[in-house]
Amino acid sequence: MTGTAAFDHPILSGLFGDEEIAPLLDAEAELRAMLAFESALAEAEADAGLIPHEAGVRIAAACAGFIPDIPALKEGAARDGVVVPAFVKALRAAVEAPHGDHVHFGATSQDVIDTALTLRLKQVLPILDRRLEHLVERLGEIGDKAGDLPLMAHTRMQRALPFTAADKLANWRLPLERCRARLAELQPRLLVVSLGGPVGDRVSFEGLGDRLAEDLAKRLGLAPAPVWHAQRDGIAEFGAWLSLVSGSLGKMGQDIALMAQNELGEVRLGEGGGSSAMPHKSNPIAAEMLVTLARFNAGLLGTLHQALVHENERSGAAWSLEWMVLPQMIMATAAGLRHAEALAANLTFVPLS
Amino acid sequence: MTGTAAFDHPILSGLFGDEEIAPLLDAEAELRAMLAFESALAEAEADAGLIPHEAGVRIAAACAGFIPDIPALKEGAARDGVVVPAFVKALRAAVEAPHGDHVHFGATSQDVIDTALTLRLKQVLPILDRRLEHLVERLGEIGDKAGDLPLMAHTRMQRALPFTAADKLANWRLPLERCRARLAELQPRLLVVSLGGPVGDRVSFEGLGDRLAEDLAKRLGLAPAPVWHAQRDGIAEFGAWLSLVSGSLGKMGQDIALMAQNELGEVRLGEGGGSSAMPHKSNPIAAEMLVTLARFNAGLLGTLHQALVHENERSGAAWSLEWMVLPQMIMATAAGLRHAEALAANLTFVPLS
Amino acid sequence: MTGTAAFDHPILSGLFGDEEIAPLLDAEAELRAMLAFESALAEAEADAGLIPHEAGVRIAAACAGFIPDIPALKEGAARDGVVVPAFVKALRAAVEAPHGDHVHFGATSQDVIDTALTLRLKQVLPILDRRLEHLVERLGEIGDKAGDLPLMAHTRMQRALPFTAADKLANWRLPLERCRARLAELQPRLLVVSLGGPVGDRVSFEGLGDRLAEDLAKRLGLAPAPVWHAQRDGIAEFGAWLSLVSGSLGKMGQDIALMAQNELGEVRLGEGGGSSAMPHKSNPIAAEMLVTLARFNAGLLGTLHQALVHENERSGAAWSLEWMVLPQMIMATAAGLRHAEALAANLTFVPLS
Amino acid sequence: MTGTAAFDHPILSGLFGDEEIAPLLDAEAELRAMLAFESALAEAEADAGLIPHEAGVRIAAACAGFIPDIPALKEGAARDGVVVPAFVKALRAAVEAPHGDHVHFGATSQDVIDTALTLRLKQVLPILDRRLEHLVERLGEIGDKAGDLPLMAHTRMQRALPFTAADKLANWRLPLERCRARLAELQPRLLVVSLGGPVGDRVSFEGLGDRLAEDLAKRLGLAPAPVWHAQRDGIAEFGAWLSLVSGSLGKMGQDIALMAQNELGEVRLGEGGGSSAMPHKSNPIAAEMLVTLARFNAGLLGTLHQALVHENERSGAAWSLEWMVLPQMIMATAAGLRHAEALAANLTFVPLS
Repeated sequence: MTGTAAFDHPILSGLFGDEEIAPLLDAEAELRAMLAFESALAEAEADAGLIPHEAGVRIAAACAGFIPDIPALKEGAARDGVVVPAFVKALRAAVEAPHGDHVHFGATSQDVIDTALTLRLKQVLPILDRRLEHLVERLGEIGDKAGDLPLMAHTRMQRALPFTAADKLANWRLPLERCRARLAELQPRLLVVSLGGPVGDRVSFEGLGDRLAEDLAKRLGLAPAPVWHAQRDGIAEFGAWLSLVSGSLGKMGQDIALMAQNELGEVRLGEGGGSSAMPHKSNPIAAEMLVTLARFNAGLLGTLHQALVHENERSGAAWSLEWMVLPQMIMATAAGLRHAEALAANLTFVPLS
Repeated sequence: MTGTAAFDHPILSGLFGDEEIAPLLDAEAELRAMLAFESALAEAEADAGLIPHEAGVRIAAACAGFIPDIPALKEGAARDGVVVPAFVKALRAAVEAPHGDHVHFGATSQDVIDTALTLRLKQVLPILDRRLEHLVERLGEIGDKAGDLPLMAHTRMQRALPFTAADKLANWRLPLERCRARLAELQPRLLVVSLGGPVGDRVSFEGLGDRLAEDLAKRLGLAPAPVWHAQRDGIAEFGAWLSLVSGSLGKMGQDIALMAQNELGEVRLGEGGGSSAMPHKSNPIAAEMLVTLARFNAGLLGTLHQALVHENERSGAAWSLEWMVLPQMIMATAAGLRHAEALAANLTFVPLS
Repeated sequence: MTGTAAFDHPILSGLFGDEEIAPLLDAEAELRAMLAFESALAEAEADAGLIPHEAGVRIAAACAGFIPDIPALKEGAARDGVVVPAFVKALRAAVEAPHGDHVHFGATSQDVIDTALTLRLKQVLPILDRRLEHLVERLGEIGDKAGDLPLMAHTRMQRALPFTAADKLANWRLPLERCRARLAELQPRLLVVSLGGPVGDRVSFEGLGDRLAEDLAKRLGLAPAPVWHAQRDGIAEFGAWLSLVSGSLGKMGQDIALMAQNELGEVRLGEGGGSSAMPHKSNPIAAEMLVTLARFNAGLLGTLHQALVHENERSGAAWSLEWMVLPQMIMATAAGLRHAEALAANLTFVPLS
Repeated sequence: MTGTAAFDHPILSGLFGDEEIAPLLDAEAELRAMLAFESALAEAEADAGLIPHEAGVRIAAACAGFIPDIPALKEGAARDGVVVPAFVKALRAAVEAPHGDHVHFGATSQDVIDTALTLRLKQVLPILDRRLEHLVERLGEIGDKAGDLPLMAHTRMQRALPFTAADKLANWRLPLERCRARLAELQPRLLVVSLGGPVGDRVSFEGLGDRLAEDLAKRLGLAPAPVWHAQRDGIAEFGAWLSLVSGSLGKMGQDIALMAQNELGEVRLGEGGGSSAMPHKSNPIAAEMLVTLARFNAGLLGTLHQALVHENERSGAAWSLEWMVLPQMIMATAAGLRHAEALAANLTFVPLS
């Protein structure tokens, strides 16, 4: 039983995890995406005449049926700092001579790892966006029904003046709507192929690099882009977006936890969490969790941006830092959206009397 | 002599400060912007019939000539947690009866403080963008002249393969170009007026709030927007942009510091910094500073996003946290751009022999 | 295959994980420690006359043989925000009437979760300390053999003046020695029992709480302490220690990565990591990893300290944030020590010629 | 009017600043401490025979009367990345030939800057400790008078069970008591002299370095220590302590802000802050400020620990990062203690009826 991170913990993942997103971020999905890259690369290279046609066919077939030897890959990653050398070696062996050597032709670790990331982000983003959309809609529905209800506004933790449920809901909904707009803007910068070769100059593709990158992108359903091995602004921008979402949800969660205080009783939440010592209690678990996930992501964002200082043409130190941080930020955001949807599904305002 | 922060330090500000941006962020500029808000608000309210025409005229005149009593404002801020009550009281006294009471009509602290922020950002953003533009141009010029020079690429801190100066320059330039595109996208979300009244529902404007917000925005050269008192995503998004810029510069600085090592000698930097103990040394001060400012801003970004959890209709705690963080992030970004321009102005590549 | 966090990733854990520490932090170990708490609590309560003698015997026996139903516990944690209610319910069922109801008598979630944490820290700390000790010794041995070798000192990334390997080694060794001293100081504050009852006043223990806490601590090999449910300074202090260790190792790693540059060649590292594209390269993987882990932990430390703002008598939000952060910090520190030992084992200085 | 940082802001410093600590951290105090270092160094070096006796006398006299040319120092800092070369040059000129050249003999920038820091920390620490002591005492007094008052405990933001004011006070007081104990432990590691010479090997002191460091320390009232130019664990440990204090106060502030909600009314705070729009309100400004300062310091702590990765024998990048962060952390902690003392002075519990 593993479980250093709450997301992967056999017990705590019920609280922190996300069963729809987790399978898109795990090792199996990553290997699948890496194989998709190598397969599409070989086909594109065969088309471009960079490797024999037959090699392209054989590599694509081998990728389709490749069964990874996880312990060997783990050992390779530990030795090389990245799984790619061991992965390529195993894939070459699977393709067999004489075509094995054409696997990964001209490419480098970032090409496959970063493209395998954006390929999975291409699956993750619509899920997050759909959840945002549903949540925005649900908050809108609550407003349609109950927007006129009088509530007490609080400023600086003190009763201020009455206002309406619609005003409260706007504070939760509008940032999420803007986050959807932001996602649409950043997506073309994020969902791009990475193809640069050993030092990011595409020289290894014998003058065909730009055309190859375009073809590869098309095959993978990504956009083409200039080499970005050592330009991590797209990743850092995406991290900021994730934290904008979870932070906006954190505000909603904090508001609800405050409104749910027994002494205020401004919301009803449906079923709350139980207590081991006080069976009479009903705790606003999901609301608290939104605050937790917001603070977690905010902190990780600061760490992710440290990785912008990516020295030279490939920084093992800065790149690895992204691996430690970004998947967790995605999970925290996804879990936040899941909790927020559950909260919103059962939320009822108690009007000021 | 003050100077807790390096930006304001009488000596260190030479290194960390920025003489063009500092005057746009200091207390004087803030008060000027607050007066601009109160003046425009009064005029708009007079036009809308919310306050007497004469009151609008008198308030605008008083704002134009208002001389703040700094110690009194400081005392007020200490007591009230925000300068606005003391500021409004003093401005009302300056306007004199019977029109003084019409100052700040229907408005609240966030309205004036947040609008005074976006008003100044409206001056800051073009400066940052212009510096980005110049830097992008300058890096382009270096590439035009020296792009073909062979350099050694380094991956994981080891010599990899030769590539060209153009490849190196692309890693510095492209993120900055994308940051310019991002700025154009976020600007409409950021440069907006704040007008909500005590609890953000515009009720204090007697049904004329939306129209008033539009008129006020027009007078101030900002865009209108729904109330955003407790929706801090625009601020947090801007902070992320600042850190994207400084982080991208940090990568450039780290590269240059590494290339400038005596044992590599891949760049010449013009005049370097001196040493108190070793007069023979020439230190890559500006390059190091880019790394420092990148790491500083990355960390502050994490803190700024904590302030997204802005409870209720006004969080004294979360709002004040923004005040502590955002101006420093702007200064760090501006100082980074200044250092990067200086670096780029004198940078020469030493080709691989 | 799970793996949101690099530590638990089936492949990347070879790089980021730690096989000695991971089993002390996983869900199984946590449940074992929770059972140890409930068992010792029941025995202590039976001795104190708070529950029947027979109940103590039966509960201890049930704890010894308890087989957790992980899916049920996961569901419980998701519902209650903490696993304890579901865990206690299952344990009560295992004990059976009439003694089942005496399980967890007077205790609350923090009591068992926090004590289960310190119980495992009691196993983790000696391992970390032993690694520190070995590393300090190994660096000392290198110094004994090679301390006189001349090396070039670098300040601000420039050659400064020659000094010796002993000077370099002191910069790596002395902070680690001080960290051992700090660990000895903080340990008595950290390795304490938590026992407070529902709201942390020990009233549920019918006047015997202080004596019970002392007895419980003795049985578990921990120190007694006043209730600390909502006082998280011990946890935050430990997090800072972890980051001091990993940060000190990060400095060593950064130094070695710089010295290992081909152009400097000041160290030899034994076997380095391979490259998927450039077989001639030997990459300083372990050195880079020390930098990565240092930056990761530094960032998480900032997040852990956010959890000091633990509102009221139990903050679901702040407490959960600790769960997300602290185990990862421990793993990152452990992995850093592991990499540093491997680095030091094979490190040879190349003297200045 | 400067004021990028809230601490130095002519208006906001009323809220965020600290009039007792600020003068110990400003540029004037720093220069005074640097002069104290150079003066004591010269005297110690004269005693040791490293410089002429007369030089020691003249340098000490010049330091006593030295009037710094701030613009020249600022220009020097901007050029050299540290003020020391310009400062030493000016001081040498003030001493005049033939003794001027003996100023700063054998020393380097870190020696004077870091010792000037610890010299000022020697003044700062007793003030912080005294405030902690007073606060602990005051909380004890409240407990003596009102400890038996019944209050409602809240867990997970919900009413739990009644407990007493003494229980609540213990949550605020005990972490502060432990912080006092921690300060006593870390102080000997922090309040040390820095003396290493250009590359930290004391070779420039001609075999007398260790003895000189001891004598210098004694003259300055600091402890001697091995060279720590590139070993920043003492600074990082102190930063963690500052955040432990401000975080513990943040918990107290958050509790009080929650208790002061009108709907709970569990505390009375004396005079609260006013509102520009709602004169009926009384806002818990100091309590909110404690939360703000806690979150600010927690974030900065993460950034300060990034500076542990201090490459080589002097990292301009990492060292400068400390300058940007540490003084602000001290100010935030001091301001927090000031606000907490004010809060505690007027705090009254309203017993549960």
